[in-house]
Amino acid sequence: SRIGFIGLGTIGMAMVRNLIKHGHKVSVWNKTVSKCTEIADVDVKVYDSPAQLVSACDIVLACLADPFAVKEVLFCQNGVMESMGPGKAFVDLTTVDVETASDAECQIKRAGGEYLEAPVSGTKKDAVNGTLLIMAAGNEDLYKRCTSCFQAISKKSYYLGSVGHGTRMVLSLSLINASINCAVAEGMALADRVGIKHADLLDVLSNSACNSQLVSTTSKAIIAKNFTSQLSLKHIQKDMKYAIEMADMYDQPLHMAASVNEMYKRGKSLGLSNLDMSAVYKATSK
Amino acid sequence: SRIGFIGLGTIGMAMVRNLIKHGHKVSVWNKTVSKCTEIADVDVKVYDSPAQLVSACDIVLACLADPFAVKEVLFCQNGVMESMGPGKAFVDLTTVDVETASDAECQIKRAGGEYLEAPVSGTKKDAVNGTLLIMAAGNEDLYKRCTSCFQAISKKSYYLGSVGHGTRMVLSLSLINASINCAVAEGMALADRVGIKHADLLDVLSNSACNSQLVSTTSKAIIAKNFTSQLSLKHIQKDMKYAIEMADMYDQPLHMAASVNEMYKRGKSLGLSNLDMSAVYKATSK
Amino acid sequence: SRIGFIGLGTIGMAMVRNLIKHGHKVSVWNKTVSKCTEIADVDVKVYDSPAQLVSACDIVLACLADPFAVKEVLFCQNGVMESMGPGKAFVDLTTVDVETASDAECQIKRAGGEYLEAPVSGTKKDAVNGTLLIMAAGNEDLYKRCTSCFQAISKKSYYLGSVGHGTRMVLSLSLINASINCAVAEGMALADRVGIKHADLLDVLSNSACNSQLVSTTSKAIIAKNFTSQLSLKHIQKDMKYAIEMADMYDQPLHMAASVNEMYKRGKSLGLSNLDMSAVYKATSK
Amino acid sequence: SRIGFIGLGTIGMAMVRNLIKHGHKVSVWNKTVSKCTEIADVDVKVYDSPAQLVSACDIVLACLADPFAVKEVLFCQNGVMESMGPGKAFVDLTTVDVETASDAECQIKRAGGEYLEAPVSGTKKDAVNGTLLIMAAGNEDLYKRCTSCFQAISKKSYYLGSVGHGTRMVLSLSLINASINCAVAEGMALADRVGIKHADLLDVLSNSACNSQLVSTTSKAIIAKNFTSQLSLKHIQKDMKYAIEMADMYDQPLHMAASVNEMYKRGKSLGLSNLDMSAVYKATSK
Repeated sequence: SRIGFIGLGTIGMAMVRNLIKHGHKVSVWNKTVSKCTEIADVDVKVYDSPAQLVSACDIVLACLADPFAVKEVLFCQNGVMESMGPGKAFVDLTTVDVETASDAECQIKRAGGEYLEAPVSGTKKDAVNGTLLIMAAGNEDLYKRCTSCFQAISKKSYYLGSVGHGTRMVLSLSLINASINCAVAEGMALADRVGIKHADLLDVLSNSACNSQLVSTTSKAIIAKNFTSQLSLKHIQKDMKYAIEMADMYDQPLHMAASVNEMYKRGKSLGLSNLDMSAVYKATSK
Repeated sequence: SRIGFIGLGTIGMAMVRNLIKHGHKVSVWNKTVSKCTEIADVDVKVYDSPAQLVSACDIVLACLADPFAVKEVLFCQNGVMESMGPGKAFVDLTTVDVETASDAECQIKRAGGEYLEAPVSGTKKDAVNGTLLIMAAGNEDLYKRCTSCFQAISKKSYYLGSVGHGTRMVLSLSLINASINCAVAEGMALADRVGIKHADLLDVLSNSACNSQLVSTTSKAIIAKNFTSQLSLKHIQKDMKYAIEMADMYDQPLHMAASVNEMYKRGKSLGLSNLDMSAVYKATSK
Repeated sequence: SRIGFIGLGTIGMAMVRNLIKHGHKVSVWNKTVSKCTEIADVDVKVYDSPAQLVSACDIVLACLADPFAVKEVLFCQNGVMESMGPGKAFVDLTTVDVETASDAECQIKRAGGEYLEAPVSGTKKDAVNGTLLIMAAGNEDLYKRCTSCFQAISKKSYYLGSVGHGTRMVLSLSLINASINCAVAEGMALADRVGIKHADLLDVLSNSACNSQLVSTTSKAIIAKNFTSQLSLKHIQKDMKYAIEMADMYDQPLHMAASVNEMYKRGKSLGLSNLDMSAVYKATSK
Repeated sequence: SRIGFIGLGTIGMAMVRNLIKHGHKVSVWNKTVSKCTEIADVDVKVYDSPAQLVSACDIVLACLADPFAVKEVLFCQNGVMESMGPGKAFVDLTTVDVETASDAECQIKRAGGEYLEAPVSGTKKDAVNGTLLIMAAGNEDLYKRCTSCFQAISKKSYYLGSVGHGTRMVLSLSLINASINCAVAEGMALADRVGIKHADLLDVLSNSACNSQLVSTTSKAIIAKNFTSQLSLKHIQKDMKYAIEMADMYDQPLHMAASVNEMYKRGKSLGLSNLDMSAVYKATSK
């Protein structure tokens, strides 16, 4: 099938390269046109609008910044919905809120098209290595037809049932990841303050039961004071915000997550939005 | 050297067995005498008081519940201090507060003895398997003389400098462990509430960047609703309390840890003190 | 001018009675028709739809549960917007989020009508006594024409500038009120737990610098265990949620408010939604 | 009776002046001798040690910084205990932890003396005006003999039963005061960030149900950016710390108070320790 791709950010760009590497023909559209030139070294066809891209493709995948960007791409002039119809499918790899996923499905189905919610978890490095996790929900037939695409960009994909379950899973997972990252930051801020040596701390962490890829990456970034973004602080804060809003709808208290969310907001307030999420260390240590 | 051991709780008992398995001659004292019969299958000599134990041994190790128990063992009638003097050494494997460690060193040195602070990190299983972590500080010569003892009970030991650094390290590590355990509990409480299936969640966690021995153990305990203690909720809350008190002395804010500590306190208030720390899930899910 | 009123909840009903008492002719519409019979003792004309009410009146005031109810009343079939146009004014007394207020103004202006945002602060008792506070913003001329209406229902009204400033003010005030109510609850939970007598505590509070109408009402409700709603727990939690969402847009950390919001959510989770906000005591004391 | 006074800090100095104004003969001791010259304008006799002061007086009142200072004054060389015995009474106006109060009573009784725990609540202004609140517990006969002293320094005193109840009451009250102060700071930080005018906010607060002497003082200090200490940030944080430690002993969760305590710690970390507690605004607004 002819694959379209919307959203050439850091993650999206890496996904397109992996799709091509795995033998897919990929056409693209991006809001900022100049981004398309960055991918001129590979054989992609660039379209002038989401509507044109949908017309030319069977399945269009999108990887965007947030729900607002998704709604714009769907509903704006020359947007996805203008060409949506039977035989057309839209697969949203963006982490959105439950309401946005549900609205998108509703509109696309009404137009006769197919919708799959497929948010991903992972870092920039995972995107480049094709080792993301995909948490899909919605049209199961469409999920199956995406198998080869998903294999190109992820180490594993899950089909979780009706629309909303992908978002619910990815937000639950993000809550845990965001909290662990913050826990490492706060623990290291304490260790620093009381005079523990960095090398000792790293060594202990790497031998303890809490050691994981995430704990290792975060602790090394903090010690190196290298906050080049693998997963931006503003991105993980956005996920926390949606997790907390989802919990609000279900009257689920989240004392810890709420506290963690405020630390990331403090990070944003300190100008750390575009740094790696490990930069929350700067917010905890002051 | 003749090794003495004070404190035959779950962890202490496992340590004594490992010391004997590695060829050490071990004498013991325990406040509750009946506990000594549990270890009657191996060759240990039981003494009637800490003072008698110290008289008969070169190095006495202690693994107790909290700083109050340590002070009692040191300073009570027929306590450690009554036999302390040149040629005698006291190695405290208990996690205490910085002040208690510092006081103990001061008194023992004044009496002509040697002191090593050596708190451990790990679960009941680690104690049984001899795979704890030891964070030692104080008398470096004594640390070296403890090498074979430490090899019997731990997978790795660290020497971290002057007294207080062991406690500082173990409390920083406990803060991170306690927070991660709580993060998993809160994330799973959210997932449950919004209708995510347990099997799916476990699978996603095990493939994600946050996967660690700790995350795995906690998430499996929660799904199995099996809260048999590996590391009791009251124990980890005690560590959090000391970490926060230490931070207070240094004016280090710990927004997340303070929130986590209150969750564990809620757990204690709900009667979960002696269950595994993963039982904090019950406090988050209500 | 002919006054219309939408929303005969506890607060709205009291407002209508005060408007009539002050000599206004009031017509009404309510979603649940039966509510209109509760006010049959006074001279109000009941209309069949918001659209008909707007047609018959110059100024329509609304006092609804939340932004969803406001949007429904504005945009549903036979809604306010169908009769909106030159010479018609809509005054929203509901506490909404900033976005809803801004959208409402935009649509009403486009239709040629006038809009005033006028959220209120106060309890059921204040509504009955006509002693609410009104925080208005938007069309200043319309604000002036509402003077006699506002005098009927409030002890004071403020004009705060462009649309959004009423919401911003009322949410900032709600954050403070919600936090104070929770502080009293948590302080009294602690006092109870440690064996302080209720009568002593009330006496001390009433003589201390923190004494206010709010502290007095909350502490007396807790001691009497009488949680008949003056301002419902779910209502104050909704305000906290919007305050926190507003803060999110501005990257303003709110560590304390986030913690308080989770306490109210815990209250909702425990089934306390429709009780008075002082019932958060039950969530803090367990 | 001959009155002794220990502790010529801001609050203590004001107390001594009020005692003299009400006709009491007062002798004093202060660690920093130079402080005694500040009170040379009134007729006080200065002693060289706590022990000498106790020898010369019937009742010695103390108003000190914290439990450490109390213990020093009691137990150091030439301390209170050296002259303590039948006919001698010690009244502690300091806010301490429950353990310190209990230890002090125990030692003083053993020596044959009398002890009253009498922590106060209020600001520097209250101390000057003699309008503090006194929360006394312990020896009831001694409490009665202190009546005229307490009338000189307070607007009201309470007798609350056995030792510990004064501390429990004052810590519960401090928790509420500290939280309200922080709520005002956080609400005003939000209002500022979203563009609400200071004059409007002050006006709304003064007319709302939350208005109190505390809310008024805090909000005015914040708007004037005048953080001259009435009650220092470090002092209120110390009280929060003891309230939280007391709650820990009783397994009482304090989610809000823990969050508030961290804000004050952040304030201390930012160098605001000696400013008024309203300066916590600076910690919330960053």
